[in-house]
Amino acid sequence: MLNLLNNLDEMLLMGPGPSTVSPTIYEALHRPTLGHLDPRFIQIMDTIKLQLQTILNTKNVLTVPMSGTGSAGMETCFVNLIEPNDNVLILINGVFGGRMQDVASRLGANVDSLEFPWGTPVIPEKVKLQLAEKKYQLVAVVHAETSTGVANPIDMIAPFVKENGALFLVDAVTSVGGMPVEMDKWGIDAIYSGTQKCLSCPPGLSPVSFSPKAVEKLTNRKSKVPNWYLDLSLIANYWSGSTRVYHHTAPINMLYGLYQALFDILEEGILTIHVRHKKNHDYLVQGLEYLGLEMLVDKPYRLPMLNAVKIPEGINDGDVRATLLNDYNIEIGGGLGIFAGRVWRIGLMGHSAYEQNVDKLLGAIKNQL
Amino acid sequence: MLNLLNNLDEMLLMGPGPSTVSPTIYEALHRPTLGHLDPRFIQIMDTIKLQLQTILNTKNVLTVPMSGTGSAGMETCFVNLIEPNDNVLILINGVFGGRMQDVASRLGANVDSLEFPWGTPVIPEKVKLQLAEKKYQLVAVVHAETSTGVANPIDMIAPFVKENGALFLVDAVTSVGGMPVEMDKWGIDAIYSGTQKCLSCPPGLSPVSFSPKAVEKLTNRKSKVPNWYLDLSLIANYWSGSTRVYHHTAPINMLYGLYQALFDILEEGILTIHVRHKKNHDYLVQGLEYLGLEMLVDKPYRLPMLNAVKIPEGINDGDVRATLLNDYNIEIGGGLGIFAGRVWRIGLMGHSAYEQNVDKLLGAIKNQL
Repeated sequence: MLNLLNNLDEMLLMGPGPSTVSPTIYEALHRPTLGHLDPRFIQIMDTIKLQLQTILNTKNVLTVPMSGTGSAGMETCFVNLIEPNDNVLILINGVFGGRMQDVASRLGANVDSLEFPWGTPVIPEKVKLQLAEKKYQLVAVVHAETSTGVANPIDMIAPFVKENGALFLVDAVTSVGGMPVEMDKWGIDAIYSGTQKCLSCPPGLSPVSFSPKAVEKLTNRKSKVPNWYLDLSLIANYWSGSTRVYHHTAPINMLYGLYQALFDILEEGILTIHVRHKKNHDYLVQGLEYLGLEMLVDKPYRLPMLNAVKIPEGINDGDVRATLLNDYNIEIGGGLGIFAGRVWRIGLMGHSAYEQNVDKLLGAIKNQL
Repeated sequence: MLNLLNNLDEMLLMGPGPSTVSPTIYEALHRPTLGHLDPRFIQIMDTIKLQLQTILNTKNVLTVPMSGTGSAGMETCFVNLIEPNDNVLILINGVFGGRMQDVASRLGANVDSLEFPWGTPVIPEKVKLQLAEKKYQLVAVVHAETSTGVANPIDMIAPFVKENGALFLVDAVTSVGGMPVEMDKWGIDAIYSGTQKCLSCPPGLSPVSFSPKAVEKLTNRKSKVPNWYLDLSLIANYWSGSTRVYHHTAPINMLYGLYQALFDILEEGILTIHVRHKKNHDYLVQGLEYLGLEMLVDKPYRLPMLNAVKIPEGINDGDVRATLLNDYNIEIGGGLGIFAGRVWRIGLMGHSAYEQNVDKLLGAIKNQL
């Protein structure tokens, strides 16, 4: 039989994720599988918790990787923190804000949304006005909107949420590992991320962290969490304490990958990595503009790790991306929603964010224009 | 910094799962990560669907691996198939039947349960009586109860469920790949499995399949599936059709592992593998009885891949298992619930089910008695 896994090329993944996986992480993925209650595995779990606390800048005890992709992390936060008829406000300026709205609505919350044009950031003053008008149990926003390349000003929104008394939930899927995420300092109550962006792991896990205030809400629920698999009150018993009550069988080898990814990041230095992302972002933008291309997002709001660039008139989106993929082994992303066919999304995430990769991509794009 | 992943020993995993991973699957796990919309990856996805249909003996179009462990598969089936106030009957004779009850209750169903003593099978005649009394929308049962080592007679229960008009949901986490699972012939409407048992993959994915009748129920729901991440009506659009609408980023490398596991099984031959499990089960039981140990479950109801054996009086459960783990690199499982401290659970799953492993384990146990 033909094995489709033979002769797969190593791709340069410069789309919206997954990003290029580093050799050390590939190596970690195929270490010997241990049992999920083996003391040596539990030591790895304990270390992952510490690593995550470090990278998220939090002291939160309830800091665990969920056994699913970033979207499972989103679902986890909502399903644990929302009860039916809770008032929820979602700040939306892209696909992932919209997804939050869908997830929250399915859980029976009263969901309001405050929408901002795609490609522009959430404006804190408008959030302030809305929050002055109505009490909310939870306010949610995306830090790094992967669909447009916009950074939302979490630190400027947080004080208004605190004043309202709501829990503050932040999607940090794309930001963690590529730019500062100050969970405690900014006053974030719940956060989720993903492994396949700036952590440069394959997709499959979603780090989640809850503040003491979020844990209090979870503890005081009137109803059980309506999702057994993602019930953090049960999962916490497996990830901490002395009894380690079995919940579900943890994805052992994926957790090896996450451990190694965080190990590598802490060894390189978080600050060093943020600088590397920013430097390569500047280098990429400079190169794209030199080729006559125009960025979608205004300079102050641009994410370093996700660069949306307008497709010039007369250039066929699909053709260019197919050529990059097939002839150059480079993947970049297309636009989503209103930007489909109008922008490319170029990722500089984790192990993809190096100068030689930017050079390779710029050369390939140049040949297509 | 000390890297905890260095020098991990290759363990002989003979507990209730995860099972020992074969070298070919380790190899697959660290193949180059592709994008989740890369045509070559989509070809791998299409093949995985065909492989799963083959191993489940089904023609069901909606046959996909969910991005979570076996428990996520359980949650998937209930959350997609149950609407509030549906009548649900759970047949319980162990931990995993009990878990089904918890999952279904959280979704607002009216849950009845029919309980049978742990260590004994579900009795079809009793199910028949219950089903004659009340209409149900869904009846659920575990095929291979991993907590006790009992095989439930799915084929004998199915006709009564069909007569009632209910959907028939079966947990096949531990049975798939180690004993026959005839989804279509037996009349199963929804099934879920896991990768870390007889497929010998690391944990992390849960194959799920829905019959046309189950799909009809999903399609005719009055309310949205109350879980976005596990919503099969959305996931189906990514796993089939020509548009491949992005849902969540698939766990690429875990899917490589699943592909390889199914590839290996189909190459060895499903029947051959079932015979291998049965032969090694017989060999193990013979050896255990020779050592004076007694099996928990009566012979006709024993699972080949999960062997519950009574711990002799005067033997300390924890000590023996710790010695096996630390001195012999062998993991076996302890008892759960009422059987905690009273039985060991010995797995013969997938790549663990070989004669030399049984010999190694029997030798190690002998030294402890």
